[in-house]
Amino acid sequence: MLAAAVTNVTLSTNQYDAVYNVLSLTIAGMGASFIALLLLRNRLPQNHRTAITLGTLVMAIADYHYVRIFNSWVAAYARSPIHGHYIGTGIPFNEAYRYVDWFLTVPLLLAELVAVLELGSKRTRPLMIKLIVASALMVALGYPGQISPVHSTARTLWAVASTVFFAYILFVLIVEINRAMAGESKRVRGLMNALRLLLLLSWGFYPIAYLLPSLVGGADGVVITQVGYSVADLIAKPVFTFLIFRLSMMKAEDEAGGVDTTSANLPSAA
Amino acid sequence: MLAAAVTNVTLSTNQYDAVYNVLSLTIAGMGASFIALLLLRNRLPQNHRTAITLGTLVMAIADYHYVRIFNSWVAAYARSPIHGHYIGTGIPFNEAYRYVDWFLTVPLLLAELVAVLELGSKRTRPLMIKLIVASALMVALGYPGQISPVHSTARTLWAVASTVFFAYILFVLIVEINRAMAGESKRVRGLMNALRLLLLLSWGFYPIAYLLPSLVGGADGVVITQVGYSVADLIAKPVFTFLIFRLSMMKAEDEAGGVDTTSANLPSAA
Repeated sequence: MLAAAVTNVTLSTNQYDAVYNVLSLTIAGMGASFIALLLLRNRLPQNHRTAITLGTLVMAIADYHYVRIFNSWVAAYARSPIHGHYIGTGIPFNEAYRYVDWFLTVPLLLAELVAVLELGSKRTRPLMIKLIVASALMVALGYPGQISPVHSTARTLWAVASTVFFAYILFVLIVEINRAMAGESKRVRGLMNALRLLLLLSWGFYPIAYLLPSLVGGADGVVITQVGYSVADLIAKPVFTFLIFRLSMMKAEDEAGGVDTTSANLPSAA
Repeated sequence: MLAAAVTNVTLSTNQYDAVYNVLSLTIAGMGASFIALLLLRNRLPQNHRTAITLGTLVMAIADYHYVRIFNSWVAAYARSPIHGHYIGTGIPFNEAYRYVDWFLTVPLLLAELVAVLELGSKRTRPLMIKLIVASALMVALGYPGQISPVHSTARTLWAVASTVFFAYILFVLIVEINRAMAGESKRVRGLMNALRLLLLLSWGFYPIAYLLPSLVGGADGVVITQVGYSVADLIAKPVFTFLIFRLSMMKAEDEAGGVDTTSANLPSAA
């Protein structure tokens, strides 16, 4: 019973609350971002909405999973009336929710980025197939490691296998962003630069959160992993998608020759 | 109470979690597809939206039922604190949710396909009546078999009766798709070909999932049936409907003579 291992840890009230409150913050953040994207989509012309449509779905899926993760956290620990610490209830904390979430949202986030880069249908299709296959393998190979005992060889082997695909995806994305920067206006290039940096920083945190329990261990390891994954998800999903929104706006404006893009919704654009 | 038979099975944590996580994934998938179809419908001209409207209803109905199935799964099994396995709580797992779902969604999915084939009102009406009657009989005759004991004669007889209508529907659909392919552009024909294949693969899985408990038996039989039905539902509903969406887009574009279909949303097209 690998998945149950987590709840053998005893948490102080502060440790328990830190995860509890960050999970709740993430539910609010994903939900608000979902609504914001619904409200903002009309500002983009029809042919520039694909990336934002995909981002909207990401927020909905992530919000659902954070509600589930929060409930699983609450079910997994109970406050001991004797010493006031939180101890495992015997119900395992379900790590799988994060992996199911990533299984669905990582391909959508990759598609979001590819959509905004506008590489043309000929290059988009094979690129998307490569990225989706790699992301499915990355997530599927990461999960058995996540639920393996902290200092086991199995955990290390799964981690390495998953990281190969992780590195491959990141490499492909950086190369594609670099390529797509040519021929764009200066401000679009500046934003793409920021996007590249954000991608490296947020994605770079996942392997760290994955490794941390082996380095820190015990209750601190559990807290840092959960808080870390949540913060990384907030950056890799909403913050990333709002940057993509700005990029879509700028590209639409550049295309329209500096004219306000809302004009594309008017009859004159037909 | 025949339906209670299922909960006599003892599941390992991994077996229980596999069903639990796939059911949760399906809730997220159906929900995200529902939102996606709502966001995408504006991209189709008014007269090409019928199929997508039907598909949107299918996602809402399926999402509702998967929430119910998930809750029924959680209620039906409890983790034994002694050996850590999951054993029946005495509350039967409600197999009827799937059948009520199919009773509502199969006619809608059939109508979705018939709508996108655009056969003309004269042929559409009798075809729809035939298909709806056959699908109601298929689902209604399948359910008594599903809740019959695994190796009973009753199960086999209900299965055979249900499969007759299943085979009839599939035969009619394939014939209609083949007919409708004539006179379409090459890329539309290619997509209809993919649709035909998807229909055979996803529908083909249901009788297999139905038969599996007789072949595999025990806990593995339960897990394979539940995971199998969920995956088949994800392919037969969202994946199928997104293919139908693409087909609707292509047909609208072909009709407009290669002009971007988004122009249909502008006043000039009214």
